[in-house]
Amino acid sequence: MLTGIDPDRALELVLEQTHQAGPVEVELLDAQDRVLAEAVHADRDYPPFARAMMDGFAVRASDAGRPVRVVGEVAAGEDPTISVDSGAAVAIMTGAPCPPGTESVVPVEQVERTADGVRLPADVVAGQHIVPRGSEREAGAVVAQPGAVVTPLCMAALASVGRQRVHVTAPPTLAVISTGNEVVDPGSAPRQSQIRNSNGPMLAAAARRLGVDQVMLLHAEDTALSLSSALDRAASDIVLLSGGVSAGRYDLVPEALEQAGATIVFHKVTQKPGKPLLLARRQRQLFFGLPGNPLSSHFCFVRYVAAAVRRMTGAPEPPADRGELAGRLTVSCERTLFLASRVRSEGEGWRVSPLVVGSGNIFACVDARAYLRLEPGRHDLAAGTPVDFQWM
Amino acid sequence: MLTGIDPDRALELVLEQTHQAGPVEVELLDAQDRVLAEAVHADRDYPPFARAMMDGFAVRASDAGRPVRVVGEVAAGEDPTISVDSGAAVAIMTGAPCPPGTESVVPVEQVERTADGVRLPADVVAGQHIVPRGSEREAGAVVAQPGAVVTPLCMAALASVGRQRVHVTAPPTLAVISTGNEVVDPGSAPRQSQIRNSNGPMLAAAARRLGVDQVMLLHAEDTALSLSSALDRAASDIVLLSGGVSAGRYDLVPEALEQAGATIVFHKVTQKPGKPLLLARRQRQLFFGLPGNPLSSHFCFVRYVAAAVRRMTGAPEPPADRGELAGRLTVSCERTLFLASRVRSEGEGWRVSPLVVGSGNIFACVDARAYLRLEPGRHDLAAGTPVDFQWM
Repeated sequence: MLTGIDPDRALELVLEQTHQAGPVEVELLDAQDRVLAEAVHADRDYPPFARAMMDGFAVRASDAGRPVRVVGEVAAGEDPTISVDSGAAVAIMTGAPCPPGTESVVPVEQVERTADGVRLPADVVAGQHIVPRGSEREAGAVVAQPGAVVTPLCMAALASVGRQRVHVTAPPTLAVISTGNEVVDPGSAPRQSQIRNSNGPMLAAAARRLGVDQVMLLHAEDTALSLSSALDRAASDIVLLSGGVSAGRYDLVPEALEQAGATIVFHKVTQKPGKPLLLARRQRQLFFGLPGNPLSSHFCFVRYVAAAVRRMTGAPEPPADRGELAGRLTVSCERTLFLASRVRSEGEGWRVSPLVVGSGNIFACVDARAYLRLEPGRHDLAAGTPVDFQWM
Repeated sequence: MLTGIDPDRALELVLEQTHQAGPVEVELLDAQDRVLAEAVHADRDYPPFARAMMDGFAVRASDAGRPVRVVGEVAAGEDPTISVDSGAAVAIMTGAPCPPGTESVVPVEQVERTADGVRLPADVVAGQHIVPRGSEREAGAVVAQPGAVVTPLCMAALASVGRQRVHVTAPPTLAVISTGNEVVDPGSAPRQSQIRNSNGPMLAAAARRLGVDQVMLLHAEDTALSLSSALDRAASDIVLLSGGVSAGRYDLVPEALEQAGATIVFHKVTQKPGKPLLLARRQRQLFFGLPGNPLSSHFCFVRYVAAAVRRMTGAPEPPADRGELAGRLTVSCERTLFLASRVRSEGEGWRVSPLVVGSGNIFACVDARAYLRLEPGRHDLAAGTPVDFQWM
């Protein structure tokens, strides 16, 4: 077991302990924002026919400047029954297949009407306003690669090639075990010395944002028996234990995990908040011991648990963003400091306002959007100093 | 009816025609990422008691440097039954209420054990390691304002004060009517001249990303009757018509909307893609006529429909972001140009790679993440030129 490691090493260890999830087949609409677990190929040429890009006339390019007879019409969705010969034109609609013999499409605004047809403009280029068959994707070519996020545009591509179901990586299942005799259900009336369980709903919401749709909320009292029983019930890929990881007499989480057959990978990270963070593993199951303080717990989720979920599903890591301090910041800390911060857009960049508050004070942080990182030491930073931050 | 307006005026008109949605009461967990429609107040002081921030001893500050007797213990969740007098200490756990008389909490690491108690360090400051009752929020004070997005941290605050249900703004309901005889259901085998409906799933996915959970997918053939019947069925707050808004013989959408009693606000915007965009209104119902080309349709959703949804729910507008061109870009357009672009993080900023492709080519854009905006005219921009973009 490692202890007192720095937050970068802790993140590496979390990622090392994480397994890639297997694929699961879902309805196309349910694949939204998930990660593709297969290569998807074009079932036919795209476009499947030479497609008219304008409403106008399908013609031979050599008829430029001449009057031509209009011999028929083809609308979108119609298979053409007539061909385009020299001296003839076929009226055509946007999206319709060009009839055999078509060399160019001339927009309707560019022709003059004649008795039995139209006069073409002097300038007609071969291939104009036609998307050639197979020019977007040839039959069999890859349309989307494994690892692609199914954005709305990607979904359009998958629907185009006829996919109604698709393989995506399965999100992990997750359980939150909130611990502590002082914690009561949000629906209960707490006694004076008790508080309501806010970490459970908070962590569930944070997980659901990452596509984790199976979240189990459990509670354990401060006894080895209650904790071990909750661990038995939490048969999820990721188990979050909120509270019980400090050094106090009732902080039973490390021992309960070892009793349950899990190996503790690390315990305590040189960071503020979230110093007591613990990581344990039992086969493919990951356990995170999170501090009970809501803000510490939230930070550990955003930095470590979210990274594990993304690694499991193959979702891309969001890069750190960069902004400027909105005001002067004077802080000092022996550990790496992560400050919950408001962020607003101003001019060409982001203005970051760190909230220097106690880690239990969730109320001060309801409109925080990011964590600002500061290395250990003393900082006296002027307003306007460039700073890196991570969106929550 | 306005026509040929620029994209900024078009966006203004969309926002002007949009009504704020009413509030709806939901379970707390279902409020995730929605917009609060009420002020939420603290039901009692927070913390509800003077809270110990460390595991250690509750003492009088004047006993600094002296041995004190340990007369009891208080754990988190326990109402203290003993008080702290001079010469005495009460063992206390993180999160527990300080007993009456407590002036300071001394961490367990800072004391020396004695026969019947502990010796306190020489330096004990009054109030240390104690969060005073009511210091985070006083009873009755506002915890979250209307308009706040219910982030995980906000949810924690709402759970803390005992909210199990909460009023949020209702997302609009939305229907997509895809039009055109050439468009077949994704499950059908298209004839040579037909394509599958990709705009329906794409627009549904884009809407669900914004919290629109009631999406109806309809289809209309290119006849006035079929279109009018689909409009009758689409009793949603927002109706998207995909296709049928160009100038072709079968582009029946504008007339069908007027027949249905809607007023056309504008038709055609000086932008590429999405020139044929149409906005109409019937009482509080908004109709968007979107081009049939998938990329044009997607762009119009991202820029206009998403803005209407956010205005209805009170969600904040995402600010434009800024990056640098990854390569040289030479383009020319009489209209304002919005180029689907790949975006990647590099060093301290975003590198933007515009995809200069036909607006029907959805396959080239599956990994696009943003729209880059260029004003009308000729542009020859070197790699590294700063550019504004909007995330999709």
